[in-house]
Amino acid sequence: MTVPRTKATFRPPIIAAQQWLKGVAFPADRPLINVSQAAPTAPPPGPMRAAMAKALEETSTHLYGPDLGLPELRDALAGRWSGLYGGTVTADQVGITSGCNQAFAAVIATLCGEGDEVILPVPWYFNHKMWLDMSGVKTVPLSTGPDLIPDPKAAAALITPRTRAIALVSPNNPTGIEYPAEVIHGFRDLARDAGIQLILDETYRDFDSRTGAPHDLLADPNWSDTVIPLYSFSKSFRLTGHRVGAVMTSAQRLEEVEKFIDAVTICPAQLGQRAALWGLQNLTQWLAGERAEILSRRAAIETGFPRLARQGWRLRGVGAYFAYFEHPFAMSADELAPLLVQQAHVLALPATMFTPPDDPSGARHLRIAFANVDHAGITTLFDRLEALSLPLAPTGGAA
Amino acid sequence: MTVPRTKATFRPPIIAAQQWLKGVAFPADRPLINVSQAAPTAPPPGPMRAAMAKALEETSTHLYGPDLGLPELRDALAGRWSGLYGGTVTADQVGITSGCNQAFAAVIATLCGEGDEVILPVPWYFNHKMWLDMSGVKTVPLSTGPDLIPDPKAAAALITPRTRAIALVSPNNPTGIEYPAEVIHGFRDLARDAGIQLILDETYRDFDSRTGAPHDLLADPNWSDTVIPLYSFSKSFRLTGHRVGAVMTSAQRLEEVEKFIDAVTICPAQLGQRAALWGLQNLTQWLAGERAEILSRRAAIETGFPRLARQGWRLRGVGAYFAYFEHPFAMSADELAPLLVQQAHVLALPATMFTPPDDPSGARHLRIAFANVDHAGITTLFDRLEALSLPLAPTGGAA
Repeated sequence: MTVPRTKATFRPPIIAAQQWLKGVAFPADRPLINVSQAAPTAPPPGPMRAAMAKALEETSTHLYGPDLGLPELRDALAGRWSGLYGGTVTADQVGITSGCNQAFAAVIATLCGEGDEVILPVPWYFNHKMWLDMSGVKTVPLSTGPDLIPDPKAAAALITPRTRAIALVSPNNPTGIEYPAEVIHGFRDLARDAGIQLILDETYRDFDSRTGAPHDLLADPNWSDTVIPLYSFSKSFRLTGHRVGAVMTSAQRLEEVEKFIDAVTICPAQLGQRAALWGLQNLTQWLAGERAEILSRRAAIETGFPRLARQGWRLRGVGAYFAYFEHPFAMSADELAPLLVQQAHVLALPATMFTPPDDPSGARHLRIAFANVDHAGITTLFDRLEALSLPLAPTGGAA
Repeated sequence: MTVPRTKATFRPPIIAAQQWLKGVAFPADRPLINVSQAAPTAPPPGPMRAAMAKALEETSTHLYGPDLGLPELRDALAGRWSGLYGGTVTADQVGITSGCNQAFAAVIATLCGEGDEVILPVPWYFNHKMWLDMSGVKTVPLSTGPDLIPDPKAAAALITPRTRAIALVSPNNPTGIEYPAEVIHGFRDLARDAGIQLILDETYRDFDSRTGAPHDLLADPNWSDTVIPLYSFSKSFRLTGHRVGAVMTSAQRLEEVEKFIDAVTICPAQLGQRAALWGLQNLTQWLAGERAEILSRRAAIETGFPRLARQGWRLRGVGAYFAYFEHPFAMSADELAPLLVQQAHVLALPATMFTPPDDPSGARHLRIAFANVDHAGITTLFDRLEALSLPLAPTGGAA
């Protein structure tokens, strides 16, 4: 008896974590701090909402659109990326998807058959792992060192005849770490040499702390033979509820992506695409302000961390939406996370949700999606974690 | 070397057919009649658009929602179906999806692993076939007789230890035929006896010509052990651009559906869900008018058909959105369809897009998605088909 595809994977972590909230009361003076999900909590800015209301007056907003997205949006995103990365991305190399997860899912479907392999650095983004599980694709974990940055040389040793791709997320989910340009470059060279694809999920790119292009891959005129950037409009323009993402690859591969989209959703929802287009045309300055705010929250994490460090916590990574905290307690992060809800009124995901079952680092870490918590909230978060009274692990036990 | 999932299937038929339009000029007095796609061409009614504009003012419309859809919409649809089918469907047995294709895709993922089998009556809905291809699932074609209605006894002979489901579409895409209640009942009995699921795609249910429930399956309190109804808000409320469909099954299976949705789209777009909910609450009378209009167009197909019949055409099926025309010409429908664009300025899909490659019936038929063509357009459609001058097949050659 075969195992149905969905039985080959785990329950969605965000949903699993919400079970921990059941039966816990959060008084008004001590509300829940939810750092479990990378999700804006405010709507898009007023002028964008007005543009969306206006778009509702157009008939085409309510009809099927092209499977690969609105031509104007594909063109606008191609232009934006060409500028940002100092290269040439054309509209026929851009496909719009129902969120960035669908971009990943579709790309995997164009690359892999049953039993093929994809390399993911550890810790990984759980929805990538879930989709690989449900696609009959083997996830090959790439261990990372103390800096949590994957090494192309280590990846090279994992490539087999079944390997079809390596997928990176930068800035990283869950660690927040911004991968250095030379690391990404090294992975591109490795992928090209091996004849496989490098999937580069840049969902959090607009919150990178560095100025200029975060890598030089698109400056190569032949980028599309190897590199597949993914993008999301969800966080940048606060459009999570409208499901708009993007994939960039060769026009030839996009014809394959189109098959997947046609059979799964036919086309992306139209209104979100209109909003994304309006955003690209009008929200550049606004987005710079959003970035500045998120960078200031990142700074608040870094500034506030020493008081946790004194208790044995370590800040292993921070950037864009996420921080990766190593905890000092004599228990697995799996056990700690529900306790955090009860004792600190903090909901965060344990790193076991981002790591292979046999990887000990999962038990030591928590992902803190701090970007949606304001400065006062970050201070309160530290207050509550500092106040925890739980048995400490023997020193030196941390991975 | 494995074949990537998308390479295991064909190009989306709607897109493939659009290639035939290239280089063909359509003068103003003889515009294209497009009967290739079941897609409303008008927006939702004004009051619904106003409700959507209002929903844009609410923050939650712009944020992630639950993977399985808005609780209020799940509840409203459960109530509607309980009433329509004289049974009990509860909110926790309803999942909202990004269109009905996603409902099918997710259900298949909960049922099948690599090499499993699903039985589809011929002709089939091409997106079902595409998804099975991309899932590594073998499509087992169930031949239908002269009435194009599948027979449970014939299906019984096709069941193997790998069979996981039978999928029916009623009213049917592509033939328009409304399956009799006793046929659907027979398939349910067969599925239950065999321990497999009966997927019942009722996308076009609101345009069924019969009054009352089209089948009695949901009157069985244990329906969810075997029956999986699928639904779409796209045609009923003209919401194709917003991607809202639904699946009904056990709460247990919905937890599996949730994994698929989480990894592929996270959640359905929020605005379309708000619109669907508003439609269920406010558009019952309006939808009855829509149904009446589409039934009158169906009548126009039936009334006008004799003049084609005199030339050897046969009306093999008609109902809801579709008619299934058997053509009289000495060529395959594959060759005929591009000629129809050039000579008649009519775009319709050949039945080869709905049938196995070795099935001769595909070459003889066209799917006519007439629901979006008004009465004048239907008259013009007949005028143009009647005026065709093409070599006729030898009589008696029709399947």
